[in-house]
Amino acid sequence: MANATQFVLPQGFRFGATKAGLKKSGRTDFALIVADAPASAAAAFTANRVTAAPLIIDKQNLRASGSKVRVVAINAGNANCAAGQAGLDAARATCDAAAKLFACTPEEVFPSSTGIIGVPLPAEKLVAALPGLAASLGAQFDHFQQVAQAILTTDLVEKTAYARIAVKGDDGTEREVRIAATGKGSGMIHPQLVPHATMLVYVLTDAAIEPTVLQQYLNASIELSFNRISVDGDTSTNDTVLLLASGASGAVIGAGHADFAAALTQVCTSLARQIVADGEGITHVVELRINGAASDADALKVAKAIAHSPLVKTAWAGGDPNWGRLMAAIGYSGAEVDPDRIDIRFGDLQICSNGGRAAEFDEKAAHDYIAQTEFAVNIELNRGSGSCVFWTTDLTHGYISINADYST
Amino acid sequence: MANATQFVLPQGFRFGATKAGLKKSGRTDFALIVADAPASAAAAFTANRVTAAPLIIDKQNLRASGSKVRVVAINAGNANCAAGQAGLDAARATCDAAAKLFACTPEEVFPSSTGIIGVPLPAEKLVAALPGLAASLGAQFDHFQQVAQAILTTDLVEKTAYARIAVKGDDGTEREVRIAATGKGSGMIHPQLVPHATMLVYVLTDAAIEPTVLQQYLNASIELSFNRISVDGDTSTNDTVLLLASGASGAVIGAGHADFAAALTQVCTSLARQIVADGEGITHVVELRINGAASDADALKVAKAIAHSPLVKTAWAGGDPNWGRLMAAIGYSGAEVDPDRIDIRFGDLQICSNGGRAAEFDEKAAHDYIAQTEFAVNIELNRGSGSCVFWTTDLTHGYISINADYST
Repeated sequence: MANATQFVLPQGFRFGATKAGLKKSGRTDFALIVADAPASAAAAFTANRVTAAPLIIDKQNLRASGSKVRVVAINAGNANCAAGQAGLDAARATCDAAAKLFACTPEEVFPSSTGIIGVPLPAEKLVAALPGLAASLGAQFDHFQQVAQAILTTDLVEKTAYARIAVKGDDGTEREVRIAATGKGSGMIHPQLVPHATMLVYVLTDAAIEPTVLQQYLNASIELSFNRISVDGDTSTNDTVLLLASGASGAVIGAGHADFAAALTQVCTSLARQIVADGEGITHVVELRINGAASDADALKVAKAIAHSPLVKTAWAGGDPNWGRLMAAIGYSGAEVDPDRIDIRFGDLQICSNGGRAAEFDEKAAHDYIAQTEFAVNIELNRGSGSCVFWTTDLTHGYISINADYST
Repeated sequence: MANATQFVLPQGFRFGATKAGLKKSGRTDFALIVADAPASAAAAFTANRVTAAPLIIDKQNLRASGSKVRVVAINAGNANCAAGQAGLDAARATCDAAAKLFACTPEEVFPSSTGIIGVPLPAEKLVAALPGLAASLGAQFDHFQQVAQAILTTDLVEKTAYARIAVKGDDGTEREVRIAATGKGSGMIHPQLVPHATMLVYVLTDAAIEPTVLQQYLNASIELSFNRISVDGDTSTNDTVLLLASGASGAVIGAGHADFAAALTQVCTSLARQIVADGEGITHVVELRINGAASDADALKVAKAIAHSPLVKTAWAGGDPNWGRLMAAIGYSGAEVDPDRIDIRFGDLQICSNGGRAAEFDEKAAHDYIAQTEFAVNIELNRGSGSCVFWTTDLTHGYISINADYST
């Protein structure tokens, strides 16, 4: 990716972060994204039936505000999930305090939380930090980076993505539309967003787009990005993707704008891959390319079975070209498969042909190939024209270390 | 469990094992169970669409022989899976050689294989070892133990279970019916046997039971035992459960014999729990008791989601009473749940009440409880009367070490 500093941020937004005292590490843990005027909003939330309090409030607020958002208030260090009425009260208290400060309605505030589940969120810490945070907001690149940093939990690196497109306005003049996004997520990563998102993602654009059209763009992009990744197969209670359109560029975008759709998908895919690459304890990023499935849905079943197999993922961790574990996962995926027609390649290396060890299988070459930090596994089912691309990781001692000692 | 040596084995069978040279460790790797006369057989195999060659041959042979088995030939060290025609040929060569040696038809031979997938099975090693092995068979307890040992792969301990019941014969005399079972399995353990089984299990009885009735007993017992365990969520290509009835006790058992059904289920459950307790790298065995589900099927969905969650399993490894991860897994299980009505207890310790942290939650006590080698997690969904009991394990550094370096 090109150097981020050559990009400029979408107009119409200000950013900032501070230390509210939620992270034990003492790092920044409370961030704001504030639109100068109510922005069009589209959102997607986790399919988990246990959903965190902020997601419940977010859905109510979007409905009440007609999908308009002024303030996004994000805390890390506490997921505000499984906390009952106290959780809902905490999320509402944050909305009320932010609404007063920014002279909007509480329904135009979009709260987000990430961190440990089951511990009541101390909203008073957020409310106390709000005035100082509001005074520090800015529209510079550094301010955006502050948000990217504050929302991290077990993530090791900030995740941001950018795009710019030229859009011809009604008056014939060309205007620049910018897209910027940031997100977090490292463990409990297997988004199933509805319309399909422990991942928190915020995508901003300065195009003018109606909320219903904005939602269509978001759904299409999510399906090819965040719904195509898995770190550990655990679908979070807090997954959220929010897309805001400020309209500050002066460019109006309706349905079916191919350039905008492509730019949005590019930004979402970049962020999705960054989330996988920062997966908890991972040492390899694997691109799964499933082809020849009976349907796209079947291709996705195969990809997910492989992405969730501890045996496949530990083999990758060890640089072990044990393709038999891939065959087992394909077999129990639920997809229609004819075992004797399955071909597997690691990159360009033929590993398995017609369901058996390929004549040209070279164990040393295969080991060297998958010892790389990033590699591709190509599965050809020879059943039909269904396909998908999916990104996942290995499963390492690092993942165990991180997760066997989280809340203590 | 009582000391195994106080039991005696079912009559009508002989046992033995030898070194055919398949295990790199040089340990015994080829075992025989031979019925004195063709025994009634019932079997269950993996639901994985990629199935090993011996399973394909077994199904053909059972059909051809009218569910009669003389010889069970089991090798460890090679799964004979994903090996195409060569795999089928290898399994058949073993059957042919055993049939000649024991003067039966090749269709009365039941081959089984476990070990690495995708490497052609050197049947010539088995065929060469057969005469010596046949000469060494015996009906003593030590001979049965030889089988239990030879079939192990990454297992650390032998697994056997026994039961005896008194059955009143047609002539009014009481006869003793014995059941003995042995099995192996440590990784790739998430049996989905059809009628639902990397697990190889051999259950033997000296009752006289027709094959169709025998199959009904087996199906019922499997549903409550082997289909209620998971180590890593990977469903194997080789899972097999075989039940043989020699009739040598002289006791005839028809359908609906409650004592026999109970004894069989007890033996299967004991073996299933032993397989979990010997799971790859595990340090804790967890009994999940799901109650109050909308249906038994829903209860099983919840149990499986928990049993497959890397986040829940790593928390257990660390003795971390992070019940929020349990809530997340319950939420994405696909079961009908009302998050605000979920109660969770670790043993008798109340952890979560009405979907939130219980007032009496004592983190230290909870930690101490789950630091035990075996513990119970009770989930009450308060939705209906569906329930299940399920056994699973934690996920540790040991599992990663074992599986990141298997075939190399």
